Amino acid sequence: MAFYAEAPKARTSGIGWRRSLQGAALALLLSAGSAAAVDKTPVENKISSFLLDNGMEVVVIPDRRAPIVTHMVWYRVGSADEPPGKSGIAHFFEHLMFKGTAKHKAGEFGAKIAEIGGSENAFTSDDYTAYYQTVPPEALETMMEYEADRMRGLILTDQVIGPERDVVLEERRSRIETSPQALLSEEIEATLYQNHPYRIPVIGWMHEMEKLNRTDAVAFYDRYYAPNNAILIVAGDVDEKEVRALAEKTYGKVARGPDLPPRIRPEEPEQNTARTVTLSDPRVSVPSFSRSWLVPSYHTAEPGEAEALDLLSEILGGGVRSRIYQALVVKSGVASSVGAYFDGSKLDETAFTVYGAPRGTAKLEEVQAAIGAEIAAIVKDGVTEKELESARNRFLRAMIFARDNQASMANLYGAALATGSTVADIEEWPDRIKKVTTADIQKVAAKYLASDHSVTGFLLPADPIQN
Amino acid sequence: MAFYAEAPKARTSGIGWRRSLQGAALALLLSAGSAAAVDKTPVENKISSFLLDNGMEVVVIPDRRAPIVTHMVWYRVGSADEPPGKSGIAHFFEHLMFKGTAKHKAGEFGAKIAEIGGSENAFTSDDYTAYYQTVPPEALETMMEYEADRMRGLILTDQVIGPERDVVLEERRSRIETSPQALLSEEIEATLYQNHPYRIPVIGWMHEMEKLNRTDAVAFYDRYYAPNNAILIVAGDVDEKEVRALAEKTYGKVARGPDLPPRIRPEEPEQNTARTVTLSDPRVSVPSFSRSWLVPSYHTAEPGEAEALDLLSEILGGGVRSRIYQALVVKSGVASSVGAYFDGSKLDETAFTVYGAPRGTAKLEEVQAAIGAEIAAIVKDGVTEKELESARNRFLRAMIFARDNQASMANLYGAALATGSTVADIEEWPDRIKKVTTADIQKVAAKYLASDHSVTGFLLPADPIQN
Repeated sequence: MAFYAEAPKARTSGIGWRRSLQGAALALLLSAGSAAAVDKTPVENKISSFLLDNGMEVVVIPDRRAPIVTHMVWYRVGSADEPPGKSGIAHFFEHLMFKGTAKHKAGEFGAKIAEIGGSENAFTSDDYTAYYQTVPPEALETMMEYEADRMRGLILTDQVIGPERDVVLEERRSRIETSPQALLSEEIEATLYQNHPYRIPVIGWMHEMEKLNRTDAVAFYDRYYAPNNAILIVAGDVDEKEVRALAEKTYGKVARGPDLPPRIRPEEPEQNTARTVTLSDPRVSVPSFSRSWLVPSYHTAEPGEAEALDLLSEILGGGVRSRIYQALVVKSGVASSVGAYFDGSKLDETAFTVYGAPRGTAKLEEVQAAIGAEIAAIVKDGVTEKELESARNRFLRAMIFARDNQASMANLYGAALATGSTVADIEEWPDRIKKVTTADIQKVAAKYLASDHSVTGFLLPADPIQN
Repeated sequence: MAFYAEAPKARTSGIGWRRSLQGAALALLLSAGSAAAVDKTPVENKISSFLLDNGMEVVVIPDRRAPIVTHMVWYRVGSADEPPGKSGIAHFFEHLMFKGTAKHKAGEFGAKIAEIGGSENAFTSDDYTAYYQTVPPEALETMMEYEADRMRGLILTDQVIGPERDVVLEERRSRIETSPQALLSEEIEATLYQNHPYRIPVIGWMHEMEKLNRTDAVAFYDRYYAPNNAILIVAGDVDEKEVRALAEKTYGKVARGPDLPPRIRPEEPEQNTARTVTLSDPRVSVPSFSRSWLVPSYHTAEPGEAEALDLLSEILGGGVRSRIYQALVVKSGVASSVGAYFDGSKLDETAFTVYGAPRGTAKLEEVQAAIGAEIAAIVKDGVTEKELESARNRFLRAMIFARDNQASMANLYGAALATGSTVADIEEWPDRIKKVTTADIQKVAAKYLASDHSVTGFLLPADPIQN
């Protein structure tokens, strides 16, 4: 049923068109870390991973503190893997996964979870689609049975497809079409990416969603929903042996799917221009802007560059202690909100974004100029050792904090493994963060943010016809 | 050999980023028509068309005035038909067509043409690829033999592919990479089209061209180069019977290729933003701008709309008598150049563009504002009957003028047939132009140009770093 399938289909939220962090591996740590200093020692989790005979990857994250488990299945397919002209099929398919199978009628799985006091959800991003339940440990086998059943057992008739397509169309209408900011975000992405499928909205474009049909759904299911394209993450009050036995008994019975080629998508050409995207709408009361540059992700970066970009985003605009927050919100007071973020957990080239909105009578241009000046200062003079140490410590504490949260850990591992990282990459991340120097940060700032080859989005109150 | 294959690979030329008109069916008429009033009665050409048994379409345009024939073969494949990630393969393949076959070694065809005093060329656009020779009538059969031979007989080895890829890479470097205007044009297209493959340059993006290989070339050849995907146009001192006999004897022997699906490409989503694309370069001396809106082409438009857009472009900015030329160049003198054009001969949704550059101390903003005011005036008050009559007469005279030129006629028919029009559409075009009213023109101006959902390109002298 549709209301089960929520989460980040709309890729943006909050001022500055921040992409949803749901499932965004390392970035997720920061959102946890922003909370406060955490002195608590993390639970020592001995994480293990292995493959089933049919190619399904399994990660077990023991956490004995409470009688609860988080059970997730991640598929290595997202909107950026959709065929041309079929935008929205990945997210639409996420909805279809809540329909009936030969064994279980639609709604039965959800009712079962509700009955035992559990919860469930699912989400689709550019790079992956994931399904999860949080339940008492004794229900784990049942969850696995249901999840393994719908991996290949869905009944996809026109009677199922048609009404659910209306649901996702309505979802687009209510989340995107009624939101000037969401519409602007879509066109910013479509302008930033000239070739790569990240330019296409995860939820899909209306005119293409309307045409998605049974043939598209079956082709998508048969290609991507198979154990050898899936990752099972179990976190909680379980051990490896137990999970292995249950996984073999359930998922292990599902036949391997087709061997898929490497996920190589069209890459961006060299970009040579400064671009702007402006949406003016009477519903907007306060103007705001964002500026995005194309930068490498953890998966595509030279060693150390993504870590440096992560720290740069934190120092520049990662919270109330950041340079632009202090300069624009605290000191000069020209901005009501500012920030910077780096979405490093993508399979392919990603964005580094700054954003801001003026306060009171201040002009948007002042906010833009002041943020520009802060970037220019870092490009010219770098950051201080103290800033780096402080940002680094926030990151490391965030990792500790994340380790203390079962769902965060499951998310972190799932998203990382689905975007080309390994378990070892995650384990080593704190060490790699520790190695970043102030020179590394200045270098990535100069390499990626000193250029006007970027896309600036403007969300404006008025709606002037300019000819 | 590379120097045989010229023409519009670079889609832009002249101020205002005008796409090449080469092969652009009806638009081509205008470039002829701009010359002057032509009173000459056109030669009465009884044009015939038929299909060979293998599906090849043939059009014969008799023209007995001189002992010369234009022989063209058009393939219904262009850059917009390329697989994702393979940009440039259509144009690269045009180059490969000048390589050797089992029967004729590379260069032999060209040498033959030169020997008899003929000329030849080839060109690739978004929607088609064409090859032609102009020769004495007695050489027609030989041309057909060579052209039919290379339709399926090319020898595509790595020894052939590698060096020719270097040639097209060099072509991109010299035509695009060294030209700020060409680079800007590419990003304007990539911004105007968010989904449709018209956003991808015909010549290809460097990083994808570098990877084109033998497998790509063979797949492209086997899919698209076949008689049932080709149109033969013969104009000149020939008759239908003669052409039919020769065509059956040569092209008729080539086996049918695979049945191709309809040419349905991903369509544009609804666009909701005003976008700008700016390239600043020290090599630019005078600033200039262009503004483009997405509009229907002859192939996609509601009846009469494309004709109205054609006349609107002529009245607004089609020549020295146009509104913006008179207002900005002749009267106020703020502009050194202005213009408007509508590229109606595309298979899919296309662009309506205005452009201008300031004169002397005038500012670019003045030119933009003045052109905007002229558009707003047409949206509000329409055009005059006199303007319409004058523009209509220029169009009709242009058609007459085109009929008087063998190569123009061959081009016109080839491009039209390759982009979804029929012989009847071309014959009826003057009547459809005659039916357009001033109300129709005001209506399309209001429908398509009154919106700021457009892309404005700026080519600027300076190169400021804006952060």
